Amino acid sequence: MSTASTTDLYEVTMALSYLAEGMTEPATFDLFVRDLPDDRGFLVAAGLEPALDYLSGFRVTREDVEAFAAVLHRPAAELEPLLGLEFTGGVRAVPEGRIVLAGEPLLEVTAPLPQAQLVETYLLNLVSHQTMIASKAARCVLAADGRPLVDFSLRRTHGVQAGMQVARLGALVGFAATSNVAAAVAYGIAASGTMAHSYVEVFPSEEAAFRAFARSHPGPVTFLVDTYDTEQGLTTAARVLRELGRGPGCAVRLDSGDLAALAVRARQILDDAGLPLVRIVASGGLDEYAVDDLVGAGAPIDVFAVGTRVGVSADAPYLDTAYKLVAYRGEPVMKLSAAKMTLPGPKQVFRRPGYDDVIALRDEPPPPDGEPLLLPAMADGRRTREPYPVTDARQRFAADLAGLPPAARRIHHPEPPHATLSEALTALTGRVRHRIEEDVVGAHRRPAPREYVPRPAGRRPGDGGGRAP
Amino acid sequence: MSTASTTDLYEVTMALSYLAEGMTEPATFDLFVRDLPDDRGFLVAAGLEPALDYLSGFRVTREDVEAFAAVLHRPAAELEPLLGLEFTGGVRAVPEGRIVLAGEPLLEVTAPLPQAQLVETYLLNLVSHQTMIASKAARCVLAADGRPLVDFSLRRTHGVQAGMQVARLGALVGFAATSNVAAAVAYGIAASGTMAHSYVEVFPSEEAAFRAFARSHPGPVTFLVDTYDTEQGLTTAARVLRELGRGPGCAVRLDSGDLAALAVRARQILDDAGLPLVRIVASGGLDEYAVDDLVGAGAPIDVFAVGTRVGVSADAPYLDTAYKLVAYRGEPVMKLSAAKMTLPGPKQVFRRPGYDDVIALRDEPPPPDGEPLLLPAMADGRRTREPYPVTDARQRFAADLAGLPPAARRIHHPEPPHATLSEALTALTGRVRHRIEEDVVGAHRRPAPREYVPRPAGRRPGDGGGRAP
Repeated sequence: MSTASTTDLYEVTMALSYLAEGMTEPATFDLFVRDLPDDRGFLVAAGLEPALDYLSGFRVTREDVEAFAAVLHRPAAELEPLLGLEFTGGVRAVPEGRIVLAGEPLLEVTAPLPQAQLVETYLLNLVSHQTMIASKAARCVLAADGRPLVDFSLRRTHGVQAGMQVARLGALVGFAATSNVAAAVAYGIAASGTMAHSYVEVFPSEEAAFRAFARSHPGPVTFLVDTYDTEQGLTTAARVLRELGRGPGCAVRLDSGDLAALAVRARQILDDAGLPLVRIVASGGLDEYAVDDLVGAGAPIDVFAVGTRVGVSADAPYLDTAYKLVAYRGEPVMKLSAAKMTLPGPKQVFRRPGYDDVIALRDEPPPPDGEPLLLPAMADGRRTREPYPVTDARQRFAADLAGLPPAARRIHHPEPPHATLSEALTALTGRVRHRIEEDVVGAHRRPAPREYVPRPAGRRPGDGGGRAP
Repeated sequence: MSTASTTDLYEVTMALSYLAEGMTEPATFDLFVRDLPDDRGFLVAAGLEPALDYLSGFRVTREDVEAFAAVLHRPAAELEPLLGLEFTGGVRAVPEGRIVLAGEPLLEVTAPLPQAQLVETYLLNLVSHQTMIASKAARCVLAADGRPLVDFSLRRTHGVQAGMQVARLGALVGFAATSNVAAAVAYGIAASGTMAHSYVEVFPSEEAAFRAFARSHPGPVTFLVDTYDTEQGLTTAARVLRELGRGPGCAVRLDSGDLAALAVRARQILDDAGLPLVRIVASGGLDEYAVDDLVGAGAPIDVFAVGTRVGVSADAPYLDTAYKLVAYRGEPVMKLSAAKMTLPGPKQVFRRPGYDDVIALRDEPPPPDGEPLLLPAMADGRRTREPYPVTDARQRFAADLAGLPPAARRIHHPEPPHATLSEALTALTGRVRHRIEEDVVGAHRRPAPREYVPRPAGRRPGDGGGRAP
């Protein structure tokens, strides 16, 4: 099976019906985040480069057709119309690393309807997961306020593939290193790692453990000092480092207890031992909230290692993403529903200074000072540009972060900027809604919105927060 | 690179040091969950079969050595001692599908120290993620109280690999189907899927959409009825089903709104149309809490499709797993720390009726009525039994669930049973602690525990909840 089988079955049943009905004209879908989780003042667009890789290689193989037939309990011949189907469409995307807001399309796919439908599940998966992680990691960067961050998440991400992505996305927002060897090599990230408590335990003493480690690692070493008693561990570490003549580049790691108080004590002990250049690394259940507290308390911590809670985005482990049809056969389409109306038509997002974003129709002239966020990425099923390296994304993120309003940068209770809708998009939304209400629903007309209004924070079953296929 | 490179760097630096020091005697590590998240009354052991696959294939290749050297900025020659290292040890494991409690080893690895260390990160990842998901999905099974469940999570799991596992783990605890085609084929699960809102939108009317879908799908169909107005959608769906002569096996799907009220209305409309066998499927942000509410309200829903919130275990997106050294060179080892003491020595867990579990030393005679949970799985680096199919695990889970105390089965505020420690394990813990305190720490002796005591629920930074490498 190819990646084409890694999909919700309904994409296949819908595509088959479209082919049977001859409904193969171009459709445009928007991929966007309906609203932000609590404690998110912004999102960092990510998953777009992997999405382009996926689309470039998309092809329904013989094995996929057999898989579809098997799960549908139908003869393979009936699924033959899907055989060989490739993605021949166009894509516009927000480049990875850019900051985006609720309602703004991150990705726009325009392709023959069956193709545009078949790729939905996989695209949603990539962009949802990666944008969520990049956004969580970005908050750690804000909290660390210039101090280096290291990704320690691999052991508890949702599978090792997720762990690879977390390392990449940490680097994308400016993390200094990862503990993940495979990711460090694959993405050109610095790797970081030292010793576990079990290492200290198998030696007769902490001192014996530290000396043994230094013997086989002639470069800078980091000693884990909290296996037994942290104060004693610090004293031992300082003595061994001094006696071995190590110092610059070396560090001690605190992994438990009152990290702020222990860091102060660690700094004293190291300074008293004449080791002012030995750094203090903190780890153990850290996330942006804990880092913010430690930085706010003035703890003399030089490096923060964040793990599980960042690697799974523990306080918001999913995003309310949507992949919605906005046009078919050149006609704008929208979904009507009080709770989750969509905006019709192909779009552009214009960023004005201060994140005064405007969601507009694709062909509108840009407003003064408006920079378009959606850029061409694929045409006729092929990339129209080279893949952007992670370093480019990192620069884009740093530049966007610099201009983000203070209220959106807060760790606790941030206030996200809201995009407004252009007059033309507002007018089109009103017209399409009116047409649907008259033609399809027969209901009464409601006034059209002027601003992208996310749904209220308190979610109920049946009201999003994990929309089902 | 092989899977050996998908690891925290510190596993490599420790293994290298162990080899340099000649410390290659057998070490035993326990993999267990320190304490349960809120709202978990039990865990379902999972990830063990993939863990055995990983260990069976573990081998440090030339490429891995080059990767290690590259990230450590050392000549490859210095990493040569790791080349060709395979896993030649023994494993005892709780079979997948069994219910386990906090503190009970799910997996015990005994191997030459460098090997046992190198596999830590990957094993933790597999068992943490999969046990977490199986445990979440198991709660859905409890809430659904006999009604079929379908996995709809693929679009928002943490990567597609995680989505494959969620489908497998749903099946493991008794889900009826998955929307994920690739997983359905790979694991022999029934597949389920129908149509999206966008499908309905591209047709001139709901009726046209339903008729077109039925044209290309001659078997049972499920119509999505909430694209415009649910009441109207239900009426249209009933009319089309009746006119087409479809009924048994067909369904309508409700994906938004007040699902309990809409299900009552749907049942009325379908029954009034002479379609008593057409089923009602509910979806849209469902998890065990929502399913429990709907079942409790008597909503006439026949099938629950659960997605994102189950696929990411949204209320508890990680487990506090640990992989701890418990013996080296035949000597028991433990970690001393008020918050996270470990229990020394190789162990066995004996289950007595009513989940009156005893964590004992490996070679203790079983207590009366005590069934051992840890069973041999590998010796000398090879499986000692065939892989267990998912169907076996499903049977084990069903049997264990039947005997679980009611307080542990509750959806809200369950009370997990607590394992007790055998007298021999308690005595050994006291002796080892005394030795460490005397020899290594020089602190005063504290009384040994008699029961496995998880840490308090309120976690602080530096106090677990995502332990760092």
